[in-house]
Amino acid sequence: MQLIYKGKTKDVYSLENDQVLLKFKDDVTGENGVFDPGANTVGLTIEGAGKSGLKMTKYFYEKLNSLGIPTHFVSADIDAVEMVVKRANVFGKGLEVICRYKSVGSFLRRYGAYCESGQPLDRFVEVTIKDDERGDPTISADALEMLGILTQEEYQILKGLTQQICDIIKAELATKELELYDIKLEFGRDAVTNEIILIDEISGGNMRVYKNGNYIEPLALEKDFLGV
Amino acid sequence: MQLIYKGKTKDVYSLENDQVLLKFKDDVTGENGVFDPGANTVGLTIEGAGKSGLKMTKYFYEKLNSLGIPTHFVSADIDAVEMVVKRANVFGKGLEVICRYKSVGSFLRRYGAYCESGQPLDRFVEVTIKDDERGDPTISADALEMLGILTQEEYQILKGLTQQICDIIKAELATKELELYDIKLEFGRDAVTNEIILIDEISGGNMRVYKNGNYIEPLALEKDFLGV
Repeated sequence: MQLIYKGKTKDVYSLENDQVLLKFKDDVTGENGVFDPGANTVGLTIEGAGKSGLKMTKYFYEKLNSLGIPTHFVSADIDAVEMVVKRANVFGKGLEVICRYKSVGSFLRRYGAYCESGQPLDRFVEVTIKDDERGDPTISADALEMLGILTQEEYQILKGLTQQICDIIKAELATKELELYDIKLEFGRDAVTNEIILIDEISGGNMRVYKNGNYIEPLALEKDFLGV
Repeated sequence: MQLIYKGKTKDVYSLENDQVLLKFKDDVTGENGVFDPGANTVGLTIEGAGKSGLKMTKYFYEKLNSLGIPTHFVSADIDAVEMVVKRANVFGKGLEVICRYKSVGSFLRRYGAYCESGQPLDRFVEVTIKDDERGDPTISADALEMLGILTQEEYQILKGLTQQICDIIKAELATKELELYDIKLEFGRDAVTNEIILIDEISGGNMRVYKNGNYIEPLALEKDFLGV
């Protein structure tokens, strides 16, 4: 089993049959010792963070796979804190697709002249390019096409899949009175079939979730949602 | 004649018949005493800057009007440094529409991972909201619709008009071996007919123009383009 990439929160190993093993770590992103899923630097290590993220990820991917959504998920081993996925190629150097149900975070910082904090948004989708150095800038469908990263048709597929997937996650969270405000997904192309599939983890670290108006931190979210 | 708005570079007076008078000033935007058309603060006063901007604006608007492009331009008096325009209402609190033929400026700062400086772009259009406090953020067609600023149909009209207008301006500049890299337009709705029309000035302060690979400053551009 060959290590092919050491990520901020996961290590990636090559497997047979165009599969890949993701080893979840207890390192979480943040700044000044505070867990911040939106940060680009590893801020601290929290015992159990990797396992907690994997439990959530396994839950949501099994749900999505059962509904026929195309994803990279094959299987997960919670005790070993690892997940087997299909090998996929990212778009360009990697994109993040954000779906927003409430106006908070960077949306509010940018468009605060036109919206209130917490104002409902109708599954607003936007794409950012993964580029720590340039602060992960947002990018339009036209720019993605002009820079050869996505065609307009691929953009529409990503947008549609994102809204479909996020609505499912939102409904799941709602069964425990948890409210999804926004969430960040990643997509790639299946290395074998070239199909566009959902990749990466789906955990508290990728979403803002509130309960009765209070933000629920990623580790507390896993306990709240999946039960102890 | 009633003053209705004191702008950074122009004062605006109300006229009869749903018309408005724009009085061009010699104040230019910039920082630390350096003329920077992209800046949000008035940096310095340059004698003749107002008249220079008006000469360019008159030239381009007369051209656009003769080609049947819908604009706010009625007439200009160079000696009085003033222009009469149709009254128009901006979208939201004001939008700027940028058209890019070369990858420079903020486009390059954001997407430098995917393009080289000066790389050709195929009339790439993007919209920013006028909001000094939040650094004039870019905004997508979906966000403009969700925040009630533009419908998708209006966005397509703005995009099409922008490409049509900028191609005309680019071709005009090219007759003097001047190359348009990018340009910023503003649109509004005609207060009488509700038609979407081009508004504001069209001068060196709204565009980046190069000659033989060298950037031409706004005041030098007017002399170069219109002759002394």
